[in-house]
Amino acid sequence: MDIIRPRTLSGFMELLPAKQIRFERMTQILRDTYGSYGFAPLDTPAIEDAQILLAKGGGETEKQIYRFQKGDSDLALRFDLTVPLAKYVALHCNELAFPFRRFQISKVYRGERAQRGRFREFYQADIDIIGDGKLDILNEAEIPAIIYKVFRGFGLSRFQIRVNNRKILNGFYAMLGLSERSGDIMRTVDKLDKIGPDKVRAILLEEGLTGEQADQILTFIAIRGTNAQVIEALEGYTGRNEIFDLGLEELKAVASNLSAFGVPEENFAIDLTIARGLDYYTGTVYETTLLDHPEIGSVCSGGRYDDLAGYYTEKKLPGVGISIGLTRLFYVLDEQGLLNPALPTAPADALVLPMGGEPGPAITLAESLRSCGLRVQLYGEQKKFKQKMAYANKLGVPFAVLLGEDEIAAGKCSVKNMVTGEQITVTPDEAAAHIKATLAAIDGPVILEN
Amino acid sequence: MDIIRPRTLSGFMELLPAKQIRFERMTQILRDTYGSYGFAPLDTPAIEDAQILLAKGGGETEKQIYRFQKGDSDLALRFDLTVPLAKYVALHCNELAFPFRRFQISKVYRGERAQRGRFREFYQADIDIIGDGKLDILNEAEIPAIIYKVFRGFGLSRFQIRVNNRKILNGFYAMLGLSERSGDIMRTVDKLDKIGPDKVRAILLEEGLTGEQADQILTFIAIRGTNAQVIEALEGYTGRNEIFDLGLEELKAVASNLSAFGVPEENFAIDLTIARGLDYYTGTVYETTLLDHPEIGSVCSGGRYDDLAGYYTEKKLPGVGISIGLTRLFYVLDEQGLLNPALPTAPADALVLPMGGEPGPAITLAESLRSCGLRVQLYGEQKKFKQKMAYANKLGVPFAVLLGEDEIAAGKCSVKNMVTGEQITVTPDEAAAHIKATLAAIDGPVILEN
Repeated sequence: MDIIRPRTLSGFMELLPAKQIRFERMTQILRDTYGSYGFAPLDTPAIEDAQILLAKGGGETEKQIYRFQKGDSDLALRFDLTVPLAKYVALHCNELAFPFRRFQISKVYRGERAQRGRFREFYQADIDIIGDGKLDILNEAEIPAIIYKVFRGFGLSRFQIRVNNRKILNGFYAMLGLSERSGDIMRTVDKLDKIGPDKVRAILLEEGLTGEQADQILTFIAIRGTNAQVIEALEGYTGRNEIFDLGLEELKAVASNLSAFGVPEENFAIDLTIARGLDYYTGTVYETTLLDHPEIGSVCSGGRYDDLAGYYTEKKLPGVGISIGLTRLFYVLDEQGLLNPALPTAPADALVLPMGGEPGPAITLAESLRSCGLRVQLYGEQKKFKQKMAYANKLGVPFAVLLGEDEIAAGKCSVKNMVTGEQITVTPDEAAAHIKATLAAIDGPVILEN
Repeated sequence: MDIIRPRTLSGFMELLPAKQIRFERMTQILRDTYGSYGFAPLDTPAIEDAQILLAKGGGETEKQIYRFQKGDSDLALRFDLTVPLAKYVALHCNELAFPFRRFQISKVYRGERAQRGRFREFYQADIDIIGDGKLDILNEAEIPAIIYKVFRGFGLSRFQIRVNNRKILNGFYAMLGLSERSGDIMRTVDKLDKIGPDKVRAILLEEGLTGEQADQILTFIAIRGTNAQVIEALEGYTGRNEIFDLGLEELKAVASNLSAFGVPEENFAIDLTIARGLDYYTGTVYETTLLDHPEIGSVCSGGRYDDLAGYYTEKKLPGVGISIGLTRLFYVLDEQGLLNPALPTAPADALVLPMGGEPGPAITLAESLRSCGLRVQLYGEQKKFKQKMAYANKLGVPFAVLLGEDEIAAGKCSVKNMVTGEQITVTPDEAAAHIKATLAAIDGPVILEN
């Protein structure tokens, strides 16, 4: 038979078990945390009608999307979880209770040029709250509070959720008589971090702004300080534009409620340079940066929008949502060596090794350890002792549980700690308790910051 | 703006939240049970190189596969989880510890004709154990024992895992001098349940068998009874063919070990008519039927194979595995009305309803209930009391927790049981304890048989 060389496509993450187990731990934290805030799990198809996915159109999306025919159908793979959500809510709006809160942790597909750290298939972990006609500002604080909980759950503390409000920006540009051009200006201002204020000013002048307008913009986006200081500076602009004033009220509510949710000030910051590229955000916007890795940009972004599903329904569906690029985040954390090395990464807590004879007693022992809540692999191969231990080592299992004739006769088993080498002979119940206590002591977060 | 009518493609399951929550509960049981037996989670890409997926080729697969070009790449969506596993193991064999045990619960894609209860995108929930050159018979008992645990975990008891061994069949046909034709004969015999023994006999004669051969085959596959009785009948054939004798030894070991794993005889049966269509099974084979719904066929099938990845590597990789067609199983159980109606299906255990004023105290209360392990939604909309309660009802949340000025002043909250209407005013800790106790009392399996 001809052999085809096995390979995995570039741009597609495929992990070995030890890393996959850590990745799963992160998705479990996401599911648990999102679930604890009353979000419903959602699982839309990966394939949709191409016409529906591309209702909005747009250059990059059209180019990157995986689109194909099957029979007469024009199909495509989802490139995000927001468009499928819009379709879902529009399709099922009579059956859903609003506000509708859903999370979805699923793979999306973008046929980008493959490069290091860029993926063509990657997980997004999204939460959104959708209102029917209206949606209270409280939700705009709850969303980043949940993200704070998730990141802390991962073990991260050196991160910052940066918050702004589009109404403040829109109101400010209206004050300058630049409403029509605010989109272009924000795109320019967005480059501030990369190219610096002088170059931003030069571009603004090229775009036809007066020197005074450019200076006012640069002064505005240079507002820095604690959240209280930034809010105080913004108060100086009030009374000149209603949208601005409304935006500031919203921002103050978000900042105050974030504190009530228990998010410390060091983990969220008002940042007037945040605008988000997408046109449809209308209120609070979020970006999240890892403080020690600003170069990777935002790892979790989103905001408030007024019209989720305008392409699919006349119904006004405002919402607020945020998305974690989970595959990329995991890739970066791993690259930076931040995966906690102390965590066991074997698929089992214990490997039961029968030392010969009929398998019955070993099966019974393994089942008994499982009933105590342990993950237990039963080793059934007829190999020499040395080979059995080599397997346990390669697997990285923290405990081997040996069962020979003597142990069986005594109703006991020998528990060997594969790290320390320590071995004790105890009853199955004692073994389970010992293993659980030892594992609990070394348990920790999946991410360990330096 | 032109509205595009939202729709979901036919053959793609998309659930409303109440059902999705039950589906997730089933996947969680699968993850937990598979994990408790020391299987590593695996997550291969949904897209693979088409050449790799189609290495084996074959009519139905080629027709059903979703295959498409992107740039110069010839791509396809996986149609099962076994081929990606074969690729994975061949690609990473130097990094894996053998036996390699993995589970994967992922969507696969088959562009079949859409019809009721048939899906083009569906979950498979697979476990496999792969050996390096050899693999002990013990694994062939463990696999169905795990499936037993999974099904019991779902709440099912009226199911039967039917077990056979290909060596017994191959050995038996060798005794009749029909080795070369055993594949065709097994395909005919496989129709026994559908067309009955007379028609099977007629087809066998048409295919050129002698009347005596046909009768021997019908006598053989008519062997029925308890597992002990079937084994006793099979003992009568021993001593005539080595393969047969080996197969019988394996079958006896599997039956005996299944008992040791705690699988009651009513849930597994030796069934000599089971052969499995696929050519590559070489030992134990499994099918699983719901006793009250034989019409839907096997909901979980698999077996022992000797050569997992022959298309991708010279390495001999025997294994044993089984696959649950989860989407179809869920669909059938739902259709039959077997989803336990007593289980709450809301995404939250409690809905915190602030009765006016600043949101701070309600946020604090919700966080406090969450820290006790509850899933809590905070309702932030400014609506009338009646509308708030209507929302709680539509959501199906078991408890509403009301927080008005009086409660805040007293450091308490009012907990309303949405089913009984009973309401108590207690501290947040008491509220959490009360809600948890009530929910624990109504908790049960996700499936409830009639």
